[in-house]
Amino acid sequence: MITVLRIGHRIGRDKRITTHVALVARAFGADKILIDSKDEKIKENIQSTCIRFGGEFRIETGVKPKKIIKEFKGKILHLTMYGDKLSKSLKKINKKDDLLVIVGAEKVPGYIYEKADLNVSVGNQPHSEVAALAILLDRLTEGKWVKKKFNGKLEIKPSNTRKTVISKED
Amino acid sequence: MITVLRIGHRIGRDKRITTHVALVARAFGADKILIDSKDEKIKENIQSTCIRFGGEFRIETGVKPKKIIKEFKGKILHLTMYGDKLSKSLKKINKKDDLLVIVGAEKVPGYIYEKADLNVSVGNQPHSEVAALAILLDRLTEGKWVKKKFNGKLEIKPSNTRKTVISKED
Repeated sequence: MITVLRIGHRIGRDKRITTHVALVARAFGADKILIDSKDEKIKENIQSTCIRFGGEFRIETGVKPKKIIKEFKGKILHLTMYGDKLSKSLKKINKKDDLLVIVGAEKVPGYIYEKADLNVSVGNQPHSEVAALAILLDRLTEGKWVKKKFNGKLEIKPSNTRKTVISKED
Repeated sequence: MITVLRIGHRIGRDKRITTHVALVARAFGADKILIDSKDEKIKENIQSTCIRFGGEFRIETGVKPKKIIKEFKGKILHLTMYGDKLSKSLKKINKKDDLLVIVGAEKVPGYIYEKADLNVSVGNQPHSEVAALAILLDRLTEGKWVKKKFNGKLEIKPSNTRKTVISKED
């Protein structure tokens, strides 16, 4: 079970980046995303994707990060460009561990570094929390996210030449 | 040589996503990003990152995509959720090929599909062009992007417990 916790989400300003974080969480094999600020629009948007494209992915907004972190039973992993090497960090994760992956926006409060079991960097250059989450989940699932079946109403057929969307009736 | 071409960039609305696309291009081993709309702010932002963190990455904004595509000598790869499987597409790329990787914003004009040698999907679920670019470059560089030396004024030392930034004088 992989849960993503998005902290520091600012309604409006972070709308698109947080939406990308949530869609990446879903597509790359996480089970759930929790967003600190209450944001009904993002919730509706992601739930609408789940209805059309399938899967059991869940989203909750307006959560309290400190409470989530305190009560979480499993390994807490904080994605940060200052963190330890990904390859080294992955060795400390057991396949059976439930994971809470913390993805910050611009500034992350100091207690996150302390509470995390692992502070993990996906490279130490500035880039994107969206990319960092994708690469982390890719490594955690050993690339198997791509084979996950979502059984949605809409399914895309891979093609080198055209858009092919298969639409199934209810 | 890998060039990223960002099309459909809307100033303001796409500022943060396009910035993430550019930073991912730089961090994951591309050499250059071209953005269709003229946008001095993004250019300054990315150039400032290059000055601080190093590397030879280049950025140009206000380019004409049709002209770029027409004059490009190499393989043109279009990232799209409708495209062919990544694993299959990678087999059609020679390591010596110069690559133009087209990354669209929301709607992509039809001619892009026609002009691309490869329309490539990073999974066929909706997610993020930022994540798609990161995974593509990760596969193209066989994960070696992480070892790239940028020799910047600022360097981050990976750590499981704290922020460690090494600052070198000029």
